[in-house]
Amino acid sequence: MLTSAEWSESRLGYPFRDPALLDAALTHRSAGRGNYERLEFLGDAVLNFVVAVLVFQSYPDATEGDLSRYRAALVSGQTLAEIANEPGLGDQLRLGSGELKTGGFRRESILADALEALFGAIYLDGGPQAAQAVIQGLLTDRVAELPEAHELKDPKTRLQELLQGRGKPLPTYSVEDVSGEPHEHWFVASCDVEAYGLRERGEGTSRRRAEQAAAQRVLEALERQVD
Amino acid sequence: MLTSAEWSESRLGYPFRDPALLDAALTHRSAGRGNYERLEFLGDAVLNFVVAVLVFQSYPDATEGDLSRYRAALVSGQTLAEIANEPGLGDQLRLGSGELKTGGFRRESILADALEALFGAIYLDGGPQAAQAVIQGLLTDRVAELPEAHELKDPKTRLQELLQGRGKPLPTYSVEDVSGEPHEHWFVASCDVEAYGLRERGEGTSRRRAEQAAAQRVLEALERQVD
Repeated sequence: MLTSAEWSESRLGYPFRDPALLDAALTHRSAGRGNYERLEFLGDAVLNFVVAVLVFQSYPDATEGDLSRYRAALVSGQTLAEIANEPGLGDQLRLGSGELKTGGFRRESILADALEALFGAIYLDGGPQAAQAVIQGLLTDRVAELPEAHELKDPKTRLQELLQGRGKPLPTYSVEDVSGEPHEHWFVASCDVEAYGLRERGEGTSRRRAEQAAAQRVLEALERQVD
Repeated sequence: MLTSAEWSESRLGYPFRDPALLDAALTHRSAGRGNYERLEFLGDAVLNFVVAVLVFQSYPDATEGDLSRYRAALVSGQTLAEIANEPGLGDQLRLGSGELKTGGFRRESILADALEALFGAIYLDGGPQAAQAVIQGLLTDRVAELPEAHELKDPKTRLQELLQGRGKPLPTYSVEDVSGEPHEHWFVASCDVEAYGLRERGEGTSRRRAEQAAAQRVLEALERQVD
């Protein structure tokens, strides 16, 4: 099995000068002091900065709202966990026995946090250029694969913009049902678009989620009408 | 009157190579295209990164939660507007006629946004080290003057931690009155700490604000008891 230093050099392409920094970045708080929490704070800022520069340069005509959406998609917990899995970060983590038993090394939030900590450690070990090179290496393919900024908007916003673009009245939403215990409510909402005679339902753990799901179905129905 | 290039060199200590970048950073969207919105996105990321490094290095023993609170205090809209006012950024802004009439150059949010855009422009013009130098120059005194991380916590959190530290039961909050029109509600809340026979009231535009105000008064009363 690779040592963590060998792992970093071969899988991330970054050879640490100070192995203690790498060790801290790979140590979850459940394994005691010297863990990655401070490095995660730093690495989160490094990552947000590098990705801001990346999308700013990649999309010279995008508005600041679109740039924010591109960045949010690239630094989401889910994306970071996927990126952490590619070089097998989970196998390098040091976790306390409780987290080990419950499979913490596979948990999305822990993988994302440890990846950010690793970026912070690389910044401290090798400076801003080293951190930028590693982050860009991991993210460049994903920048190229980003959907249109428009598709990163939530369904209610997309539906509103589509109807406004066609000069039609806005959709109306209503909550049709709320069930379940308090704190475990389940919502059913509907979305009506009279101009096209469409009415779809959506469900979710909040009113907002139920409405978004309903709006998504209306969008899909509108796309079928156009086809 | 100074040109904007002279202003930047003399008041910020940064001579722009590309005056078009400086012009864009000083142009509000009300004055048309070529405005500072994209630069603000970039500059916000640069600022958050530089300040993260600054507090990380200044407070080697702070937890990640305390580092976040320090950073939030340094990059708040109010702090940024104060920093923007020191070199007279408002007088350099290009605003549309509507914003000019309503005094937009004095508005906190516009000053804060333009300052961030300026940091973004300096990053593009002179690289990360130039941006870091200007930001650190503007913020170093404020880092030294930061209150204890503890004091940056909100009153309800501070009161809870104080009572837990003394092994006392937690405070109870109740809303005593809600008045005013919808969307302009005014809340009166009370905070009870039975262990010390204390009960204080607070008011505000939301339940949360009223409770925070009440907790703040209880904290002050507890401090008087100790003195």
